[in-house]
Amino acid sequence: MIKGHGDDIYQYEGIVSDFSSNICATTSHQPVMRHLASCQQLLSHYPEPEAWSLEAMLAALHDVNENCIIVTNGATDAIYLIAETFRYKSVIPAPTFSEYEDAYSSFEQKEDKTTLWLCNPNNPDGRIYDLAFIKRMEAAYDLLVIDQSYEHYTNGQMMSVREGCESKHIIQIHSFTKDYAVPGLRLGYITANERLTAAIRSHLRPWSVSSLAIEAGKFLLRHDEFVCRPDLVEAQRLRQQLLAIGIDVMPTQTNFMLCRMKEHDAGALKKYLVRHHGMLIRDASNFHGLTPQHFRVAAQTPVENDALVAAIRNFIESRNG
Amino acid sequence: MIKGHGDDIYQYEGIVSDFSSNICATTSHQPVMRHLASCQQLLSHYPEPEAWSLEAMLAALHDVNENCIIVTNGATDAIYLIAETFRYKSVIPAPTFSEYEDAYSSFEQKEDKTTLWLCNPNNPDGRIYDLAFIKRMEAAYDLLVIDQSYEHYTNGQMMSVREGCESKHIIQIHSFTKDYAVPGLRLGYITANERLTAAIRSHLRPWSVSSLAIEAGKFLLRHDEFVCRPDLVEAQRLRQQLLAIGIDVMPTQTNFMLCRMKEHDAGALKKYLVRHHGMLIRDASNFHGLTPQHFRVAAQTPVENDALVAAIRNFIESRNG
Repeated sequence: MIKGHGDDIYQYEGIVSDFSSNICATTSHQPVMRHLASCQQLLSHYPEPEAWSLEAMLAALHDVNENCIIVTNGATDAIYLIAETFRYKSVIPAPTFSEYEDAYSSFEQKEDKTTLWLCNPNNPDGRIYDLAFIKRMEAAYDLLVIDQSYEHYTNGQMMSVREGCESKHIIQIHSFTKDYAVPGLRLGYITANERLTAAIRSHLRPWSVSSLAIEAGKFLLRHDEFVCRPDLVEAQRLRQQLLAIGIDVMPTQTNFMLCRMKEHDAGALKKYLVRHHGMLIRDASNFHGLTPQHFRVAAQTPVENDALVAAIRNFIESRNG
Repeated sequence: MIKGHGDDIYQYEGIVSDFSSNICATTSHQPVMRHLASCQQLLSHYPEPEAWSLEAMLAALHDVNENCIIVTNGATDAIYLIAETFRYKSVIPAPTFSEYEDAYSSFEQKEDKTTLWLCNPNNPDGRIYDLAFIKRMEAAYDLLVIDQSYEHYTNGQMMSVREGCESKHIIQIHSFTKDYAVPGLRLGYITANERLTAAIRSHLRPWSVSSLAIEAGKFLLRHDEFVCRPDLVEAQRLRQQLLAIGIDVMPTQTNFMLCRMKEHDAGALKKYLVRHHGMLIRDASNFHGLTPQHFRVAAQTPVENDALVAAIRNFIESRNG
């Protein structure tokens, strides 16, 4: 695992605005925590060895066979399971989420085949791969893994689970963490045709998903109002504000964006923002292919975003002055 | 993973007495669930990539360096991590917990070395390996893994964490699941010297332990009164009662015991007990080395235990009659 992921808020005290995590928190977690607290037997018994009951609900939601779904201990667990199962060479565009490379390099290549890992929308830049491109990649590679963790964070067109399951070569990854802003829970899932999921399933470890996560997942699926849908208009406004103070910001189709200062280091900016403003950003310099000047922010409320832009402007001016 | 572990209560309705799980539930889970519900930010942020804060508390408890501790997504995750790290040949006594074999056979052997896996106290029979035996095994094998999940379930002498960490070749596994009767939570840990834990740590997957599990673990460690300590006297009484109706019961030093009927199948007994008495036992016939006649029970309250003995006697009489 790389050091320095986003949302490293546990390292700091006094953070008032967290731009470091892409996760868009829209609603309170009180209802789900109250629900969990009301389930008396939740801790007393082992979870299902595999989260079959939640898989059945997801199958109904996506109108596919339950065998096409594997619930995992977060989307990261899904990534490692796929890498462990299909020991192919991997092609990983840069920059993207670091865990594909970490997972792929944890297991020796055994077959003369190639997996393409796509994050769609892509982290850290919020870029979308369109369906025509995905179809071309499906034809070009032995296996196409599409991490759709941020699928609810965009208006761009995503491949449906049904379409993915009809393909021979596509595996999709989904994330309750992102869907419902519950990163502390650890809940994700894989969807693919039954031949692919059967291979992955043989690597599943029993009870890897907690009873709390299974029950919370079922509760959340019954409450569509808890699905995160970030304010994409506000994100575009933040991007324009950052451009206006001289930051390079990549075009984005979601709530987060990849930024680059012309001269200063993201690490120094991060320290400054924590110390003087209680703001946390994602130093993006450790993404493969990026530079010390790169950082990532996810739009928050208009007031917080304006404060961020002002604070970054102060940082740059104080350094330049 | 094998089908037919114990505590498969999710498969049945109307179970009133569960003898199938070894876990001794002494206290209510309300305090820990109330505590979790009071931690507002628990779901909103990623857990620590590795559960460092809980590892520090465990290090203080056991008076060892924090580097000697790795918190895992349940003890089963610990077993797979060890098997993934040390690609040795494995020696696994039978009968014992099936996951050692499952984990070991998931990874190709790479080195001409041998690991001995001991479950102490042993599942399914409640047997204890004494310290002199463990010392001999430490000398005889390249690596000795001691799964001490049931360490609080016996009066027998266990190797301390400090002693284990002073050895070059010993890895111990511990289980919050068993310590505090919280199987739904998924929380366990590994202890060993720093050279061994460093090797295992390189296989850790980020965020594999949920924020809920980390926070609950810290809460439970502060409350010694929640540690499970089964009634071993009542367990011996149950054993005598079962012997008295003609069941072979292995000697045990804990609350659970391995039983064998002279003629009838454990699968049939299990079905009968579920259907007619709402009682769940562990059909132990799928343990490597056991027979269709083997089952396992964990002692419950005296009233429940008496009812179990009466129900088993009825079953045998009705079959013999």
